[in-house]
Amino acid sequence: MSAIILRTARDGDLQGIVRLLADDPLGRDRERYAVPLPDGYGQAFAAIAASPNDTLLVAVQRARTGEKVVGVLQLTVIPSLTYQGRPRAQIEGVRVATEQRNAGLGARMFRWAITRAKKAGCHMVQLTTDKRRPDAHRFYEKLGFAPSHEGMKLRLD
Amino acid sequence: MSAIILRTARDGDLQGIVRLLADDPLGRDRERYAVPLPDGYGQAFAAIAASPNDTLLVAVQRARTGEKVVGVLQLTVIPSLTYQGRPRAQIEGVRVATEQRNAGLGARMFRWAITRAKKAGCHMVQLTTDKRRPDAHRFYEKLGFAPSHEGMKLRLD
Repeated sequence: MSAIILRTARDGDLQGIVRLLADDPLGRDRERYAVPLPDGYGQAFAAIAASPNDTLLVAVQRARTGEKVVGVLQLTVIPSLTYQGRPRAQIEGVRVATEQRNAGLGARMFRWAITRAKKAGCHMVQLTTDKRRPDAHRFYEKLGFAPSHEGMKLRLD
Repeated sequence: MSAIILRTARDGDLQGIVRLLADDPLGRDRERYAVPLPDGYGQAFAAIAASPNDTLLVAVQRARTGEKVVGVLQLTVIPSLTYQGRPRAQIEGVRVATEQRNAGLGARMFRWAITRAKKAGCHMVQLTTDKRRPDAHRFYEKLGFAPSHEGMKLRLD
């Protein structure tokens, strides 16, 4: 097994990130992995890089042939008036490569994100998870997340 | 009845916003409304104003004696790789003054936020709502929100 390291994403990771987002039961219908990538991905990557409140974390596996993206998550620090003006952290777009599941990588990525959220003064980390992903719920509950809220979505398209 | 207008928040609104956040069954324990306000609120207000992705909406009632904040909501545009790189909008910190409930003000505030989210290219507006607020769920469902996700929270304090 080669080492997996966690770091913030670089331009060269985008192709691997989108491949990972598309290789998912729900992502399959939503994403479009092609070479070259549809323009929207590059624009979003640049917008995330330009936002001081957003961080894109990748887990990359190092092999002799190069690096492979095997995990991704996005951390957003939301400045907030509630709770006496303390920011909250939100996590979106979590994916772990199929072959890396149940090996502790997701928990490692979350520890990284939680540490970063604490450093930013956040009192809370929050996320929503599709009710069709029961495995994900169990994973988050093991990390200490409580399903105290309804996650409500309004599609605009 | 005096006219209620919607606009982005200004410095002079902060006192009224915090009064509103504190006048709420759940907010009562979390907030601290005092004159002068605890420093955290001013710092958060400045952070929101400085963030190009965040907008604080207020509903103010105009009377001869001045303006009164009767509604507040925060809209965050989150740049995102998922859904082929389209941003999503998030709404937090929604409060409507008790005396203005069930009079359509909340729906007006949401229409304002949804219009703004569309202009920013968002494909979705999302929020989480405490499971102890059943009235809020009904309100969001009437606006078209679907409770498709679990809203999970991890407290860091």
